[in-house]
Amino acid sequence: MENHEKHMFARRNDTLRQRLKDKGLDAYLTFDQSDVMYVSGMPSEGCFVLISQSGDFLFAPLLLAEHARAVVQKPMKVVEDRRLLKAMAGIIKKNGLKKIGYDPDKIQVGLFKSLSSLPNVHWEPLGGFILWQRMFKDAHEIGLISKACQLTTRSAEKCLATLKEGITEQELSFKLERLFQDGGSVKPAFETIVAFGESAAYPHHVVTKKKLGKNMAVLMDLGSSMEGYKSDLTRTGFFGKISPRFKKIYNIVKEAQAAGIAAVRDGVAAGKVDFVCRETIRKAGFGKFYVHGTGHGVGLDIHEPPRLGISVKDILKENMVVTVEPGIYLPGEFGVRIEDTVLVTKGGCKVLTVV
Amino acid sequence: MENHEKHMFARRNDTLRQRLKDKGLDAYLTFDQSDVMYVSGMPSEGCFVLISQSGDFLFAPLLLAEHARAVVQKPMKVVEDRRLLKAMAGIIKKNGLKKIGYDPDKIQVGLFKSLSSLPNVHWEPLGGFILWQRMFKDAHEIGLISKACQLTTRSAEKCLATLKEGITEQELSFKLERLFQDGGSVKPAFETIVAFGESAAYPHHVVTKKKLGKNMAVLMDLGSSMEGYKSDLTRTGFFGKISPRFKKIYNIVKEAQAAGIAAVRDGVAAGKVDFVCRETIRKAGFGKFYVHGTGHGVGLDIHEPPRLGISVKDILKENMVVTVEPGIYLPGEFGVRIEDTVLVTKGGCKVLTVV
Repeated sequence: MENHEKHMFARRNDTLRQRLKDKGLDAYLTFDQSDVMYVSGMPSEGCFVLISQSGDFLFAPLLLAEHARAVVQKPMKVVEDRRLLKAMAGIIKKNGLKKIGYDPDKIQVGLFKSLSSLPNVHWEPLGGFILWQRMFKDAHEIGLISKACQLTTRSAEKCLATLKEGITEQELSFKLERLFQDGGSVKPAFETIVAFGESAAYPHHVVTKKKLGKNMAVLMDLGSSMEGYKSDLTRTGFFGKISPRFKKIYNIVKEAQAAGIAAVRDGVAAGKVDFVCRETIRKAGFGKFYVHGTGHGVGLDIHEPPRLGISVKDILKENMVVTVEPGIYLPGEFGVRIEDTVLVTKGGCKVLTVV
Repeated sequence: MENHEKHMFARRNDTLRQRLKDKGLDAYLTFDQSDVMYVSGMPSEGCFVLISQSGDFLFAPLLLAEHARAVVQKPMKVVEDRRLLKAMAGIIKKNGLKKIGYDPDKIQVGLFKSLSSLPNVHWEPLGGFILWQRMFKDAHEIGLISKACQLTTRSAEKCLATLKEGITEQELSFKLERLFQDGGSVKPAFETIVAFGESAAYPHHVVTKKKLGKNMAVLMDLGSSMEGYKSDLTRTGFFGKISPRFKKIYNIVKEAQAAGIAAVRDGVAAGKVDFVCRETIRKAGFGKFYVHGTGHGVGLDIHEPPRLGISVKDILKENMVVTVEPGIYLPGEFGVRIEDTVLVTKGGCKVLTVV
């Protein structure tokens, strides 16, 4: 772990602590794997974290304690125990923590019942408390996302440039994922989508053994990851002689995406970016074939806030990372989606999915 | 989808329905992805299922509806809607479902709050209701698990037989996963563990770029999957001239595992299998270096019930699939774990992790 990271987690957690204080809370408890990674650097499932006015604690099962001790930086403490909830109860009591926040969308009913039985603790529902802070990426995070974005883009371009008749969707997805591995991405950010021909008309197509034939659309939606940070890219190409119909649709989507990217800047409503993409496609006569939202935040999770959708009022801010991904889907024909991951800046945005 | 599958899901769900009736319940609601796969064949996240005395319903978001309609078999109905919870509330009301079971360990506090607001419905906590049935594998499931087990074993043996100095843990894990892909397993059952030398002393070691050198232990814990059904195997080898120390430890673990496998049969307590493994290792003087349980069920989830651990009283039954995986971990030296996946039979068990 590099030296600057030693201060990175402490800095993030100090900000969280201050925000807790402003809300009159003594602590915040998270079981969410991406939250845990963000506040501690610990990537494994099965750990949880308590950020409190009396210090920060990572709770690790015995089998992960060695790993946790190697990863977690002071001043966060690693608590290893056979009975982690009991150990946490002891810390809560000892430090007199009385008002503790949690995310009701990230904690199961059964577990919450156990927590609720702790005496003298008030549990305050506080959805997305850490997620809200995770929306604003620091330099370390932007560096990792950029690296993942570049690898993803290089891999996609390489595969598109060397398409061969007869390759299956599955083989092409494996090829992309192997390029990720060779480039230093241990695992893909999500299940790679490769869709040939008519299958490209389904935005969430699941890869099959369908073979690439002449004059087929090729849609690839893919992302590599770097130290947990993800990237998201879609490219749509055409194998063979490009039909006028494909060219027309492609150009509309391209124009819509350019308009969307041009609209991204610090201070703009997320819904506005969706609106300009949607308007371009609607005016071209294909509005009803644009069947999904325009984008989403990207970070430790592949889908994070903010959401770029119809009427979303959330404001895009400097250092958010979001996708812009309009598409047109023509059932029985083909689909075109063009997606890039961009960094919101003061005056506009920087496209991260470049070679 | 083959023809026998058309009846498979209906058969499973009829059994669930009868069990609900026996408990005086009108329905059971599950959001768990493996449960949903088991009752409907739908592998994607974001769907949920209601099994009821008035019929079975899979709720699919619009973007997955096409896929759901292709996968889901009658008599289960696919409900596609922009507002799925509202659609479900309508079905619950229309069919007069009043007592509905759910798994408190698989449903978030926030979502449950929405469900609790439905009028005239009593929600009955019923943890592991579908999981309990999933413990008993049918012929279709045993076929898929066997296929995954064989591919996993072939891949491990091939890699062990062709180890080369200088390969990194990560490269070896990629090599194993590529053999899975070539063999028809779209993704690994879990994050492949490869540990060289001292790293093998940590049961949950995370793969690094450490290079293989002469006279190192090589521990590989891996699993391929077939149509969602998983396999689990650990092999420990030695690269170079096997040291007497490694040989001694290896033989103790091998003996412990053989004793464990010999103890598996319909009617035996899961804790008994753990006991015989643990006793063998304890008698050899290494009891305190056996730091985890002896095994777990394997199916759509890599870790399912039953758990084979100290004093577990659950009884192993015919057609359960479990792992037997004792190990000895010597910090600063190396570790040895030997794991196979076995099918419980009337008189014993059948090892599925064979070539």
